Amino acid sequence: MKKITFLFLTSLFILSCNQKQEKVVDSNLLSSEEKIDSTSIKTLFNSALTEGKSYEWLRDLTKNIGGRLSGSPEAAKAVEWGTKLMNEVGLDSVWLQPVMVPHWVRGEKEIATYTTDGGQKNVPICALGFSIATPESGILAEVIEVKSLEEAEEMGEKLRDKIVFFNGAFDNTLINTFQAYGGCVGQRYSGARVCGKFGAKGVIVRSMTNVIDDNPHTGTMSYGDIPIEQYTPTAAISSRAAEILSADLKQYPNLKFYFKQSCKTLPDAPSFNVVGQITGSETPENIMVVGGHLDSWDLGEGAHDDGTGIVQSLEVAYLFKKNNIKPKNTLRVVFFMNEENGTRGAKKYAELAKLNKENHIGGLESDAGGHTPRGFTIDANAVNTKLLQSWKKLLSPYGLHDLDKGGSGADISPLKDDNVTLVGYRPDSQRYFDYHHTSIDTFDKVNKRELELGSASMASIIYLMDKYLYKNTPVKP
Amino acid sequence: MKKITFLFLTSLFILSCNQKQEKVVDSNLLSSEEKIDSTSIKTLFNSALTEGKSYEWLRDLTKNIGGRLSGSPEAAKAVEWGTKLMNEVGLDSVWLQPVMVPHWVRGEKEIATYTTDGGQKNVPICALGFSIATPESGILAEVIEVKSLEEAEEMGEKLRDKIVFFNGAFDNTLINTFQAYGGCVGQRYSGARVCGKFGAKGVIVRSMTNVIDDNPHTGTMSYGDIPIEQYTPTAAISSRAAEILSADLKQYPNLKFYFKQSCKTLPDAPSFNVVGQITGSETPENIMVVGGHLDSWDLGEGAHDDGTGIVQSLEVAYLFKKNNIKPKNTLRVVFFMNEENGTRGAKKYAELAKLNKENHIGGLESDAGGHTPRGFTIDANAVNTKLLQSWKKLLSPYGLHDLDKGGSGADISPLKDDNVTLVGYRPDSQRYFDYHHTSIDTFDKVNKRELELGSASMASIIYLMDKYLYKNTPVKP
Repeated sequence: MKKITFLFLTSLFILSCNQKQEKVVDSNLLSSEEKIDSTSIKTLFNSALTEGKSYEWLRDLTKNIGGRLSGSPEAAKAVEWGTKLMNEVGLDSVWLQPVMVPHWVRGEKEIATYTTDGGQKNVPICALGFSIATPESGILAEVIEVKSLEEAEEMGEKLRDKIVFFNGAFDNTLINTFQAYGGCVGQRYSGARVCGKFGAKGVIVRSMTNVIDDNPHTGTMSYGDIPIEQYTPTAAISSRAAEILSADLKQYPNLKFYFKQSCKTLPDAPSFNVVGQITGSETPENIMVVGGHLDSWDLGEGAHDDGTGIVQSLEVAYLFKKNNIKPKNTLRVVFFMNEENGTRGAKKYAELAKLNKENHIGGLESDAGGHTPRGFTIDANAVNTKLLQSWKKLLSPYGLHDLDKGGSGADISPLKDDNVTLVGYRPDSQRYFDYHHTSIDTFDKVNKRELELGSASMASIIYLMDKYLYKNTPVKP
Repeated sequence: MKKITFLFLTSLFILSCNQKQEKVVDSNLLSSEEKIDSTSIKTLFNSALTEGKSYEWLRDLTKNIGGRLSGSPEAAKAVEWGTKLMNEVGLDSVWLQPVMVPHWVRGEKEIATYTTDGGQKNVPICALGFSIATPESGILAEVIEVKSLEEAEEMGEKLRDKIVFFNGAFDNTLINTFQAYGGCVGQRYSGARVCGKFGAKGVIVRSMTNVIDDNPHTGTMSYGDIPIEQYTPTAAISSRAAEILSADLKQYPNLKFYFKQSCKTLPDAPSFNVVGQITGSETPENIMVVGGHLDSWDLGEGAHDDGTGIVQSLEVAYLFKKNNIKPKNTLRVVFFMNEENGTRGAKKYAELAKLNKENHIGGLESDAGGHTPRGFTIDANAVNTKLLQSWKKLLSPYGLHDLDKGGSGADISPLKDDNVTLVGYRPDSQRYFDYHHTSIDTFDKVNKRELELGSASMASIIYLMDKYLYKNTPVKP
């Protein structure tokens, strides 16, 4: 037993010694001002990780409201929820920005099926946003498989009366999964536009995901400027169903695919951006925006897309207030409406900012999921880009190593201007497209610590931007 | 509709532009040799992400064998499984290293309960490894709550006939969760040793986790060198139960806590390390070890701890073979037995290495979960530490930014020597203690891409170590 004890103690000792030491910024590398910043950032992280509210806010939004597509009763509830919450956090002022939004509804659960010698197969399917319905009896037609918009264009007249099956898959060798998404999403968005003009009867698209599973991923599509009589019903099928259908088509090239959906686009509906702010203590006329989008697709609970961005954005303001950090510039939290199918909220916000001659100096958007923090992308002029990158030594102890040039996000980018510094929060992307736009984008997929670390990461860069970023370059020394 | 289309296209364009560009190493910063290395590393990642086997291997291990504590029939099955798999991968030689291991069994499901004016509360509980059983009728006693071993020591005689409740919680402000674990695990390991000598009747310990939930976390404990008559039954209770019990004790300081467990330590049992290797093409006498531990706690499926380390270690060899990369030194894969309660396999491996005058030049261990990659810790002499850190520009495009000095792992650290370069694989730690040593450490908690990125990360550093690391410093230029 003594020998065992010794071995265990040794083993435990090794365990303790093995683990990476908690990194603190080496004080010798910091100026006196940076030491203050380092302490402030640590305060924000400690606060988020011990008294953060974002996780419970997210539970409330996802579990008590759930999916909230623009124009839906749930989206209206989310506006009420957001307004109430901003007031509870004690922002200096909270208001709504009215905006008309597209109103598409899914209708009855979609059905898809086909039959081979192996029997009938039921295909997991969902209509794409803005697709038209099939006739009530559904569509039955032969299938042509293509891997890209270009291939469909080349097929031309061969597509007539067929169901066109876009089966371009994610390139899983891309480390950043958003790159893989970017390489495929054109099929989803423009497949029906391309095929409609050649008289296709329907379009089905492989789901936008890294994984092979049974969840169809919805998302927005557009018929572009083709005449309405060329519109074809369009839907996504699960990645596994796409793999199976592709294999079946090799053996049964004339198989007939059937699907039925009853979605439709209703007249535009009234909705709102929810806006709240802490008025700046020194230059209140300068505005820094932090936000995400309040709407979500209807299939799941809109947890990672973009409930996490919403609650993290508000938590930035909460952490400032809780720790008595008064922003010098006005810190404005915006819950944008309608990012998913129209970005009307984003346009409205930028339009009003211009109309009211508001002076935006910076913005931060969280719309890439609530996973563990990796960094930020910076969309700014050269001087401010360099300034933000100089904060790396303050941010890297928290896993925030990535500070590359890149876009910010769909909701704040209409504010783009040479003197506005826009930033996108970039958490780890590996799991994001497992859930994106599906019925499994639910609260249980979000990890409390990862969410809170994200809030603190965002609060930290906002703290630094607020302190060091002034409207016009050159920045205050 | 045209306006909508325009907005959508704009929005999609922004989406594409927003996403961080796939980082490639800037060729201008690389020597010609580093360009070759950069290409080889990309090959390893591409291969892992498109033809990796680790995820299906892990499914097999966790779902068809499951939890596999040392000495159990499942551990024996895991040895067979590992041997078969190493042969299937086509390693040059595969063999077993016999080792006697401790054999502790949990017995019947543990029971714990107490009653207040609010009624009876059932407490989620599990015996700690090497604990003795309670009497068959269980233990009923008043509870003394402490937060640390020091506090228990100070209590001294006040602990007599009491159940001592260690309720020290994780420090959630520590970004690296292993640091929080290190700050608490002494209570679990040594609580019974400290309290036994003061005549405590039993010990219950708050579970080692960042979260508040209902899962008790098992783990190893030791009675140290106290006489056997001072041994007290010891168990973990869930973090939520700990919070509730602590609150109840404030209101009902004399409440009596009851628990019952029937675990016992059987005589040592025969088992094995599973070892396989690809013989080096240039200096086969130099050995590089890559491994994890095959045993796991009994409650879950041993997925993150340490099924992921096992399958990733073998995948390193698989990726070398699949891509026709021949290691210059011998690449040895080891599935260590008994890391969880004894590290007998680790000691046996080091003992045999010494006995057989084997020349180990390096080692890599994966035993920190299968989450998204963050980097490595390096336990090496100054020259080799600097060498490994010089690879940062090759590794950081894959999210591997952390290359700090630190320990490697419990299974390879007995090989420590000034001329042996030991490395620990360090994935993101945020979720690890949600599952660690519980019934929910199951296959579904592992993400396929994250697992594969880990295999590729490990293969990449092994590729570099194999190429640049020679036994004695100074290293080959």
